[in-house]
Amino acid sequence: MSNPLFDHKTIRAYTSEPIAQTSVDRMLQAAIRGSNTGNMQLYSIVLTTDPEVKKALAPAHFNQPMVTAAPLVATVCVDVNRMTKWCEQSNADKAFFNFETFITATLDATIAAQNMTLAAEQDGLGICYLGTTTYNPDIIIDALSLPRGVFPVVTLTIGHPAANPGLTERLPQEAIAHAEKYHDYSADDITRLHAEKEANPENQEFVKENSKQNLAQVFAEVRYPRQNSEIFSAKLIDALRKQGFMN
Amino acid sequence: MSNPLFDHKTIRAYTSEPIAQTSVDRMLQAAIRGSNTGNMQLYSIVLTTDPEVKKALAPAHFNQPMVTAAPLVATVCVDVNRMTKWCEQSNADKAFFNFETFITATLDATIAAQNMTLAAEQDGLGICYLGTTTYNPDIIIDALSLPRGVFPVVTLTIGHPAANPGLTERLPQEAIAHAEKYHDYSADDITRLHAEKEANPENQEFVKENSKQNLAQVFAEVRYPRQNSEIFSAKLIDALRKQGFMN
Repeated sequence: MSNPLFDHKTIRAYTSEPIAQTSVDRMLQAAIRGSNTGNMQLYSIVLTTDPEVKKALAPAHFNQPMVTAAPLVATVCVDVNRMTKWCEQSNADKAFFNFETFITATLDATIAAQNMTLAAEQDGLGICYLGTTTYNPDIIIDALSLPRGVFPVVTLTIGHPAANPGLTERLPQEAIAHAEKYHDYSADDITRLHAEKEANPENQEFVKENSKQNLAQVFAEVRYPRQNSEIFSAKLIDALRKQGFMN
Repeated sequence: MSNPLFDHKTIRAYTSEPIAQTSVDRMLQAAIRGSNTGNMQLYSIVLTTDPEVKKALAPAHFNQPMVTAAPLVATVCVDVNRMTKWCEQSNADKAFFNFETFITATLDATIAAQNMTLAAEQDGLGICYLGTTTYNPDIIIDALSLPRGVFPVVTLTIGHPAANPGLTERLPQEAIAHAEKYHDYSADDITRLHAEKEANPENQEFVKENSKQNLAQVFAEVRYPRQNSEIFSAKLIDALRKQGFMN
């Protein structure tokens, strides 16, 4: 049996087959069982199937077609609203609207999202993580009526795979793992560790298509250009401030 | 066969049995195969077994005994240093030292950490997530020689379990999941959704031990008090600025 820990593939196209409620429940149970800070479960998961709500979410994800085409869109959010309400009703002095809590809750929400992903994949479903979630949080906050204290960090589109792509290349283990302490990379290390990635035919095609000299330029200048990083960083900090987390 | 997606338990005590290299390799391979933004793999994993380095890490984790006692401590870091060096060598205009990239790389690092966790658990190992990682990043940065552009977000202590605790309680699925959009909680919802948690005998013991009126007060006033949140938030933003991410 395949093990989704080792053979995850991003699935962007889905068949029309709906997702069984038993699979949705398994995904949620896996999410809930994940590690989380102090067992406070400072996250919420919004499960969207309504075409109108998916249409409202789509612009946040630059109208990538899988948002409206996927049978299920799961938006995993940091949530200190529920905890704060509980504390207020319990006459407890609470302080969850702050940056440290945002970061630890982001870790917890992501663990929940990855457990959901693996449960979905164990059931034969395919998913796509949408990195656009933190680019346009304002649109998602509006589309899903997220109150102050709730912030979207991960979006998954989920469905039965319409295709079965191959595994994507990765850097060698040696590029990622450091023994005992961090060992900074020499120029030779950088060259050696990226050689296979640069030689990959698909990556060479990207270089050609984009009329660049090499793959690093495709990443840094085409896909993740400086101007976008600056705009999205400012927008993200602004949205975090509005939702109550920049304290 | 047990499925670690549904039966994860935090393991804080380990036997003296060392971890097989095959298990370490499986953990790293699972980490590397996880979803990540644009396949840039903006993370590094530091694997510490040296007692001296573990001793240097311990204060960051408030000297919790599992840091020095665990055969393996894995510190999973956001890493834009490797990517930036590659871009510099490739004459690519790069802009990865910013807040947006920090957040997306945090998601990727956490997905990698959770895949490591599940691979370890599939091999019969036990792990503990240390939430202290983002409380005292300065100590970890120093202990592991993390350069600018590298930031610790998750620490796992890993070993063969010395005990087999039961599952910890969780909120009901209904507390976490929202259909279509976010549905804010009424006072009655909050009471109903926390009833089982408050009735849990172990939780009632915490209330008594801490001389509090209820469980919410234990969370908000004893475990995660306002003063700590303020200190740790300021420290975290300061450390992010020093490592180059508050842009």
